[in-house]
Amino acid sequence: MAKKTVNVALIGTKFMGKAHSNGLRQVARFFDMPVEPVMKVICGRNPKETAAAAKQFGWEEASTDWKAVINRKDIDVVDISSSGEWHHPMAIAAAKAGKHIICEKPLANNLKQAEQMTEAVKKAGVSNMCGFSYRFAPAVATIKKMIQKGELGELYHFRACYQQDWIVDPEFPLNWRLQKKTAGSGTLGDIGAHITDMCHNLVGPIDSVCATMRTFVTERPIADSAATIAAKTGQKRTGKKGKVDVDDAAIFLATIKGSRTLATFEATRFAPGRRNYNCIEIYGSKGSVIWNQEDMNVFQYYNCADPGHVQGFRRVHATDPGHPYTQAWWPSAHIIGYEHLFTHEMYDFITQLGKKKVTYPTFEDGLACQRVMDAVERSTKSKRWEKV
Amino acid sequence: MAKKTVNVALIGTKFMGKAHSNGLRQVARFFDMPVEPVMKVICGRNPKETAAAAKQFGWEEASTDWKAVINRKDIDVVDISSSGEWHHPMAIAAAKAGKHIICEKPLANNLKQAEQMTEAVKKAGVSNMCGFSYRFAPAVATIKKMIQKGELGELYHFRACYQQDWIVDPEFPLNWRLQKKTAGSGTLGDIGAHITDMCHNLVGPIDSVCATMRTFVTERPIADSAATIAAKTGQKRTGKKGKVDVDDAAIFLATIKGSRTLATFEATRFAPGRRNYNCIEIYGSKGSVIWNQEDMNVFQYYNCADPGHVQGFRRVHATDPGHPYTQAWWPSAHIIGYEHLFTHEMYDFITQLGKKKVTYPTFEDGLACQRVMDAVERSTKSKRWEKV
Amino acid sequence: MAKKTVNVALIGTKFMGKAHSNGLRQVARFFDMPVEPVMKVICGRNPKETAAAAKQFGWEEASTDWKAVINRKDIDVVDISSSGEWHHPMAIAAAKAGKHIICEKPLANNLKQAEQMTEAVKKAGVSNMCGFSYRFAPAVATIKKMIQKGELGELYHFRACYQQDWIVDPEFPLNWRLQKKTAGSGTLGDIGAHITDMCHNLVGPIDSVCATMRTFVTERPIADSAATIAAKTGQKRTGKKGKVDVDDAAIFLATIKGSRTLATFEATRFAPGRRNYNCIEIYGSKGSVIWNQEDMNVFQYYNCADPGHVQGFRRVHATDPGHPYTQAWWPSAHIIGYEHLFTHEMYDFITQLGKKKVTYPTFEDGLACQRVMDAVERSTKSKRWEKV
Amino acid sequence: MAKKTVNVALIGTKFMGKAHSNGLRQVARFFDMPVEPVMKVICGRNPKETAAAAKQFGWEEASTDWKAVINRKDIDVVDISSSGEWHHPMAIAAAKAGKHIICEKPLANNLKQAEQMTEAVKKAGVSNMCGFSYRFAPAVATIKKMIQKGELGELYHFRACYQQDWIVDPEFPLNWRLQKKTAGSGTLGDIGAHITDMCHNLVGPIDSVCATMRTFVTERPIADSAATIAAKTGQKRTGKKGKVDVDDAAIFLATIKGSRTLATFEATRFAPGRRNYNCIEIYGSKGSVIWNQEDMNVFQYYNCADPGHVQGFRRVHATDPGHPYTQAWWPSAHIIGYEHLFTHEMYDFITQLGKKKVTYPTFEDGLACQRVMDAVERSTKSKRWEKV
Repeated sequence: MAKKTVNVALIGTKFMGKAHSNGLRQVARFFDMPVEPVMKVICGRNPKETAAAAKQFGWEEASTDWKAVINRKDIDVVDISSSGEWHHPMAIAAAKAGKHIICEKPLANNLKQAEQMTEAVKKAGVSNMCGFSYRFAPAVATIKKMIQKGELGELYHFRACYQQDWIVDPEFPLNWRLQKKTAGSGTLGDIGAHITDMCHNLVGPIDSVCATMRTFVTERPIADSAATIAAKTGQKRTGKKGKVDVDDAAIFLATIKGSRTLATFEATRFAPGRRNYNCIEIYGSKGSVIWNQEDMNVFQYYNCADPGHVQGFRRVHATDPGHPYTQAWWPSAHIIGYEHLFTHEMYDFITQLGKKKVTYPTFEDGLACQRVMDAVERSTKSKRWEKV
Repeated sequence: MAKKTVNVALIGTKFMGKAHSNGLRQVARFFDMPVEPVMKVICGRNPKETAAAAKQFGWEEASTDWKAVINRKDIDVVDISSSGEWHHPMAIAAAKAGKHIICEKPLANNLKQAEQMTEAVKKAGVSNMCGFSYRFAPAVATIKKMIQKGELGELYHFRACYQQDWIVDPEFPLNWRLQKKTAGSGTLGDIGAHITDMCHNLVGPIDSVCATMRTFVTERPIADSAATIAAKTGQKRTGKKGKVDVDDAAIFLATIKGSRTLATFEATRFAPGRRNYNCIEIYGSKGSVIWNQEDMNVFQYYNCADPGHVQGFRRVHATDPGHPYTQAWWPSAHIIGYEHLFTHEMYDFITQLGKKKVTYPTFEDGLACQRVMDAVERSTKSKRWEKV
Repeated sequence: MAKKTVNVALIGTKFMGKAHSNGLRQVARFFDMPVEPVMKVICGRNPKETAAAAKQFGWEEASTDWKAVINRKDIDVVDISSSGEWHHPMAIAAAKAGKHIICEKPLANNLKQAEQMTEAVKKAGVSNMCGFSYRFAPAVATIKKMIQKGELGELYHFRACYQQDWIVDPEFPLNWRLQKKTAGSGTLGDIGAHITDMCHNLVGPIDSVCATMRTFVTERPIADSAATIAAKTGQKRTGKKGKVDVDDAAIFLATIKGSRTLATFEATRFAPGRRNYNCIEIYGSKGSVIWNQEDMNVFQYYNCADPGHVQGFRRVHATDPGHPYTQAWWPSAHIIGYEHLFTHEMYDFITQLGKKKVTYPTFEDGLACQRVMDAVERSTKSKRWEKV
Repeated sequence: MAKKTVNVALIGTKFMGKAHSNGLRQVARFFDMPVEPVMKVICGRNPKETAAAAKQFGWEEASTDWKAVINRKDIDVVDISSSGEWHHPMAIAAAKAGKHIICEKPLANNLKQAEQMTEAVKKAGVSNMCGFSYRFAPAVATIKKMIQKGELGELYHFRACYQQDWIVDPEFPLNWRLQKKTAGSGTLGDIGAHITDMCHNLVGPIDSVCATMRTFVTERPIADSAATIAAKTGQKRTGKKGKVDVDDAAIFLATIKGSRTLATFEATRFAPGRRNYNCIEIYGSKGSVIWNQEDMNVFQYYNCADPGHVQGFRRVHATDPGHPYTQAWWPSAHIIGYEHLFTHEMYDFITQLGKKKVTYPTFEDGLACQRVMDAVERSTKSKRWEKV
């Protein structure tokens, strides 16, 4: 009997397209899959680039017509890895077509879109995932289990930052992530969404926030190739500039529904030396944990019950048999890379296709995150705490 | 010709009394002092304990009458290291008596007191220091110089926490630091004050805040010896409990006057594993620095101008000849301890006695800090951003 | 025109078989390959397991007849990832058949075999690689470039360890790596070989050694399934034991040909807490570097020329555009995993097929390493320094 | 009744003179001392410098006549902190005079001297300490207790280095530490002695070694002031050079009497970036520990018995109540400095004056260390393992 398969269409050929392709391609090479994904078709705007991506990433076909692809009968799963502005129309269309949907985060460019998308998948009864990839790090999954088992006790503090530095240079050109029209927001939706979801995933739902946001570089060179070259070579660019209308940084405090936990958040692209520093700290009555994405295989753990002469944070490599997902990979301390967050995503999504209760983040989680981001933007304007 | 000396009276025999005594006793043993402090008299409430402290710490005399001591003609400097409630009357009295004054932080138990104290020393024209000891770590002093020279460029982010864990156990007894009457506030004034001053010292004056505060353990055993024993031995205590009316944790966002820097603060005594984790992170357009008090001889530095293949945070031991204060001590990487923050404090205060312009934190700095703490408390109640 | 391809046969289905398969499968999905590997056939002893491996890892065919496979006309490259005892016959056969050869390290189970194998590939004129995979970490490749450019100056010290802990439990069963017949040596050939090659790769050829070796657990349960279960569950096993006739640890000092560098080595499987701690430290007149495999994306660098107030080891994430191999992967600080050491291996081997001068480690390097291991064993017996 | 006191004479006014003075001055200010040291007289060669040192460090008198001082009736303890060449005559004289003796390490400039000194103190029946100061770090003392209680199980590996970088610059001038006549040996006796003693202290007596030593810079500017200035300013010096006749680096392997532990040692002054990196690693059947002097308040600990999902090295601040010596100092994580190794030394020595069985390192320990250094030198010449 032939192995069961599901046919996947992916929309997006850039960073996330590459990452999702790899996850789909690799998942059945490492995990035991009762159902295997088939990489049917990849979809992009530029015919030549999309064809090249199909070949490079291992897709059977390339297409530039996302609507047609979504409506193909042979497609079971639609994976939306395009820029933020497209999430809403694509997800609505895919839901209508009865497809299971994976959608990159942030779920949408604003709250209204997110609500409509969530309603659409519910109505359609399709499996749906919002790509909060960091949940799938073995270290993070371990921490989640520890919290669920009560190993940290009552949680007093959640302290998170997501710091990057790729646009510190004012000559770095405008791209889609730096414009409201395409990205919805700047730092907030791109990386603030990740730490917001990390709080939801590990601690509980945020119910009020107090925030402020800032744009440090308000004009940037238009993202034509000249500008890009200039940014890379460090030459002064003489061409046109465009307005940055999204945030470069967002900071906020938060309270958690039904708990006494205090939470602080800092998302910024202006922290030199921090390339991708998504760091969370959780302090509880029985112990504490710290994790950061730059060293994603490792987490720190403090156990209040340790004997007095040997109390201290442990540096745990989450690569042992006791850590989720690791059985598929290599011996202990033979680390896995960033890309396998997506492999794990695909594993969880595909092995739970059609299930009512799932372990992965859904559109509901994407929507919950969007509500927080909306409240952060409201609070920034109102200069007061806002309910989520 | 005899060396010049100044006579010091110290009020306080506990943790800070011990630390200040050591600073005064050691300063001339390591630094070249044109004027040497003479440890005349230590002042405490309990005659026996104070006599013992005098002997232990190296004071000529012991006294239980602080008013008399302050008014002694032979006393040049009064060092106030008592609990918070006493700072105001003692400082006012010392100023009136024309004494130079060192006062522990927080300067006062509320803003009004701080204003009066600051006015008093100004009027009296006496030298005055507020004991923000962490300014005196060679690493912090190095960072300050770097910022002043522009080595970090424009500062985008100040991210600070001060985390401790000594009262996580709910059986830890009530002490003076956990009562409003004696301490003014809890975490906020004790350790929040330190990171507030760190921001003032390194970045600039905070002009608005948004905050919240929380008390996790609202009742504690009365601090009699039985309670103390119970807390240490972990036995359940059956005796009386008293109300904790100060904060266990305070978190706040802040903006800085005349700059675009965003600042976040977290002060807590409920972070298991963090014994004394006063950690500051500063991100600027040219580089970044990170420092924490638990490893106070070290700081991290990222330089944006480093060549592309070797960019990363450096771990600098601030024990080399290029670091302030280190010339008095040991060869490189032979670290100094916590206590010498106070030795440096005494060095700076005594060598600048009578000067108009000083490098150390004064009552003005203590007052500035108090204004922020006041705004934090106001914001916690109003649930909105408050001007400092 | 069709893309050029080379057909590969892989012998070995376990840890290294899995790792090499992944490297071959992924290399053209990330790197631009003028010639692409085709995964023709995988070869193992057990028909069922080999068939399963073929399917799991993505090979077209499975075979249990390595001699037949090596002599297949359609095979261009033979990849030997079997246990040590088979390297010699397989490599000799593959060379005779005119195949390009990849062979796992250690090249052979003894010096004589290594010499014959090296002679065979030379005579046959085939491309040949010895799988010293750690050379292919971007961090290590960066360090190599730095040394070649003189950025570390004259090298004074090479200090290496390779520490693991997977056999500390005396109930861990005998397996092929713990028997001389199959593995040649224990720790020495398995992990001592890696740090020896690291020295050859980065510093220079070892020309004399002084060593000692030790076996801490001299008898172990026979590696039947009962033993394995016992080891995992921690139960006392009552069955038969077998003799461990290889080393559990090897330590040695070394001198380097034509240089004044002093080198120290420690290879052990008895270092609890060290899962895969391959750590090298190099100290030179202009700077120093430190790297360890457990955190393989990172290295530390000290530059003597840094200004006095900011001297310290930098923690560099070797994931930036300035680091070798990284252009194929993800944005900065989105780390890669252990497996891509092999992807890089395959990239270098295949893109240099047929070249006279190559950048990757060859059988010559494998032989050089074997000479050192032979000298280490001689020195352990003679109790004196031995020439390599 | 007056408190009991002992009168101390110190010989040496430089680095060690300063450190010992501080220890003596501070010990009774922090520890409860049944007998207090009185700092009677400091002894040096240069009258002016010695007088200044007396004043600076807090001694009652200064002297340039060590023989007279040693024979003063009012002196109870002689502390020898002079350069190596003087240890032997001074210790012999002090023993003859019936004084208790503290002597800096290495005990002597050669084995014969060390034997005679040890015999002399035995014969005289005086208390005697050899200043292996690193034993007195709370972290090291904690590790010792853990080993004694069996918390690390059987010890498999001791891996130590002591790396410094203060003479990497070839223009750094000749001083007494770089000449055989005054220092006996170079790196070996100065810092190799420390890690040798660390092994003796924590693991057991070394019974055989295999070693090599090297001098990287064989000529240096004569240590006149011109040379010193040149070294500091980086100018090329044109003056006279002298021969360095001691080792710049020493590496050795060792075995331990009555145990299976393997030990490796590296002592060097040519490790750029390592200012004072005395690092020991101990791996045992139940756990492992790591400590280094640059961050001396901290050690790492791995416990094999930790649950599978949270195994990792803990970073323990040895500043908690459960750590030796800490009760005298500050609250947890308020670290102590290098100087208090000597305060602890003085505490242990003085509180155990006249006892037969002592906890501190004695001349016997100094002699044991000297025997190892002698064997290291013999092995370097013979090019084979040598018995200690």
